[in-house]
Amino acid sequence: MSWGTELWDQFDNLDKHTQWGIDFLERYAKFVKERLDIEQNYAKQLRNLVKKYCPKRSKDEEPRFTSCLSFYAVLNELNDYAGQREVVAEEMAHKVYGELMRYSQDLKAERKHHLQEGRKAQQYLDHCWKQMDNSKRKFERECKEAEKSQITYDRLDNDINATKSEVEKAKSQFYLRTHMADESKNEYAAQLQNFNAEQWKHFNNAIPHIFKNLQDMDERRTVKLGETYRSFAEAERRVIPIVSKCLEGMVSAAKAVDERRDSGIVVESFKSGFDPPGDFPFEDFSQNLSRTGSDGTISSTPKGDRERDGAPAPRSDPKHPMSRTKNKLWLFGKKPKAPSLEDFSHLPPEQRRKRLQQRIDELNKELQKEMDQRWSLIILYPEQIHVFSSPFNLRFVSVFQRRPEQDEGRVREESTDGRPEQPTA
Amino acid sequence: MSWGTELWDQFDNLDKHTQWGIDFLERYAKFVKERLDIEQNYAKQLRNLVKKYCPKRSKDEEPRFTSCLSFYAVLNELNDYAGQREVVAEEMAHKVYGELMRYSQDLKAERKHHLQEGRKAQQYLDHCWKQMDNSKRKFERECKEAEKSQITYDRLDNDINATKSEVEKAKSQFYLRTHMADESKNEYAAQLQNFNAEQWKHFNNAIPHIFKNLQDMDERRTVKLGETYRSFAEAERRVIPIVSKCLEGMVSAAKAVDERRDSGIVVESFKSGFDPPGDFPFEDFSQNLSRTGSDGTISSTPKGDRERDGAPAPRSDPKHPMSRTKNKLWLFGKKPKAPSLEDFSHLPPEQRRKRLQQRIDELNKELQKEMDQRWSLIILYPEQIHVFSSPFNLRFVSVFQRRPEQDEGRVREESTDGRPEQPTA
Repeated sequence: MSWGTELWDQFDNLDKHTQWGIDFLERYAKFVKERLDIEQNYAKQLRNLVKKYCPKRSKDEEPRFTSCLSFYAVLNELNDYAGQREVVAEEMAHKVYGELMRYSQDLKAERKHHLQEGRKAQQYLDHCWKQMDNSKRKFERECKEAEKSQITYDRLDNDINATKSEVEKAKSQFYLRTHMADESKNEYAAQLQNFNAEQWKHFNNAIPHIFKNLQDMDERRTVKLGETYRSFAEAERRVIPIVSKCLEGMVSAAKAVDERRDSGIVVESFKSGFDPPGDFPFEDFSQNLSRTGSDGTISSTPKGDRERDGAPAPRSDPKHPMSRTKNKLWLFGKKPKAPSLEDFSHLPPEQRRKRLQQRIDELNKELQKEMDQRWSLIILYPEQIHVFSSPFNLRFVSVFQRRPEQDEGRVREESTDGRPEQPTA
Repeated sequence: MSWGTELWDQFDNLDKHTQWGIDFLERYAKFVKERLDIEQNYAKQLRNLVKKYCPKRSKDEEPRFTSCLSFYAVLNELNDYAGQREVVAEEMAHKVYGELMRYSQDLKAERKHHLQEGRKAQQYLDHCWKQMDNSKRKFERECKEAEKSQITYDRLDNDINATKSEVEKAKSQFYLRTHMADESKNEYAAQLQNFNAEQWKHFNNAIPHIFKNLQDMDERRTVKLGETYRSFAEAERRVIPIVSKCLEGMVSAAKAVDERRDSGIVVESFKSGFDPPGDFPFEDFSQNLSRTGSDGTISSTPKGDRERDGAPAPRSDPKHPMSRTKNKLWLFGKKPKAPSLEDFSHLPPEQRRKRLQQRIDELNKELQKEMDQRWSLIILYPEQIHVFSSPFNLRFVSVFQRRPEQDEGRVREESTDGRPEQPTA
């Protein structure tokens, strides 16, 4: 159905409708803007949440518990998830909102143009009508004049008292008027013909053409709306696969939680390496008592030790009461906060072993690095090898002969030395 | 690795670690709470957005433009989408946050119990040690007494000046002391044996058992964390299919936008049904001029009408100047706001036809309804048919013979009557 033919007399309604169309489009654009603001705000809140719960401390301080690592993995995935919400917001901002705003500007300009065309055409038709109307009135007036002069002429013509000259004068006057009326009749006829021609063109060419343009414009607007409804949905649809990946990431992080491993880590980090205290020995204060004159009832060994053979063999411990309290200290007291010494001698054996092992690993890494550098140098400056080679060899020796052996030595000392080492409280 | 054996001396560290474990779990719970608050807030904002842009007017006033209908469809889908975000929040609230809070309560109670057990065991061991220590000191004291009495006895025994009774007294004193020392030696031996037995049980049964419980508890906590990480992700994962459906719904709404249909609706709603004005006729004011005496130059028909035969035939229009201005009114003036009359005679023909057609459809529906009712009545009370049948028949006639024919009649009148109807401005 064409507006040009069906709605030829509905200019005002088309004016109103096309305005409504632009308003509707801009209302939709506003809706999209508000939606994307909500998305941005949502993403921002998620990012803040992640930041708030992310570990503050540096890598090496971080606990190695799988339950913590998995939680941080979940946080990372949530951060990516927030990033996807931002992508949605940006898509909506550029592909929908921005697009609509640009488009509505063009639309307004085009609409204004078409409506102006319409008004111009109408003004022109009105102008033609006025011309025609004027010429018609002129013709009417002059016909009346002609009629009057005819009456005058007829009256004198039939008046026997009228002079010939009077009659001639009235006759020529009547002819003159009739001639003038005839002139304006032709003028009016020409104007009428012109107006009818213009009016025909107005309703059969101008208006149909202009209204057709308005219709095309309005249909393009509708198409654009459909497109932007689609891209509104697509903006979100596109991220769903990545969002799913984030969620799968969380699930696999959850699966990576390993309770056995975590309770093992607790052992690693706290094990002192000491053995539990053994039996206390019997202290015989009666050795100085001479048996002479006594009935020898004082037995040199107490029944106690004889009877308990299921228990581990008693360890000799001269200053036992002392170390006893120490054991108590170890069992419930605070771990000592000693200054960290080069040889970690302030630590209990197990912790010390670990630290020394770490140090060895570090040194080996360092060594490997320098040796690699050395080879690269040899390749670059073969003639200078002798300059570099010796110190590197020394280094090599120093690392592998001094440190590890000595450390091993220390550790062994403690493990052989029966009684647990005292913490320097 | 078992805490009971490896960490026998790390009670304080296990106390700290298990406390840390509960804190970590509650921190995670807090995180989940904040996440679900963000979700709820997000869903709320989306729902408000939808409400804000949903059409206020009633169904029949709603525009039938596909562009509008599709927009409302998009809003509906967005509303469902918001609903899904609420589902996510609820899942997190019940299956994750609530679960964690309940669990941490149990955890705290259980931890407290295990630590109390540990302290009790330690107190008991300390008690045994004190008893043993006391008996040992007693034994030591009495040995010293016995030694002293032995020296006295030896001195008197070798003193030739000492009386027999003195010697006897010292000897019996010495025997008594020795006997007492012997007694306390046995007592000490028994206490020592008891303590060593208790200490062995403490480090080989009590502590391993209690620490094993702590380890199990801590491992259960880790497992629970893993489970809740998973349900945290699943809460969202579960809604993805429905969310996708919402987005597909938006896309198909977008596809349903039909620009041809919408511009057709514009025609339907505005078409007046009038024809564009035809040519204006020639009005001859020179008819009263008698041809007598004139040279007949005044032609009865103007050239204008003769020449234009391509254009539509001129319509006769007696009071033309009037209707001319009316045409202008129709072309650019406001549509008249006339009171709606029963027969819609205030509307232009096309609009009137539509309204009358609507009315007919309404009446037919109504009729159908009553006829259906009638049949149901006939089935219920066949004997009373005669009572109901006649009015229904009348009704039937009244609808099909009065209204439509008359309306058709009216419409035809206008279309045959040449000139466009005047709006009652």
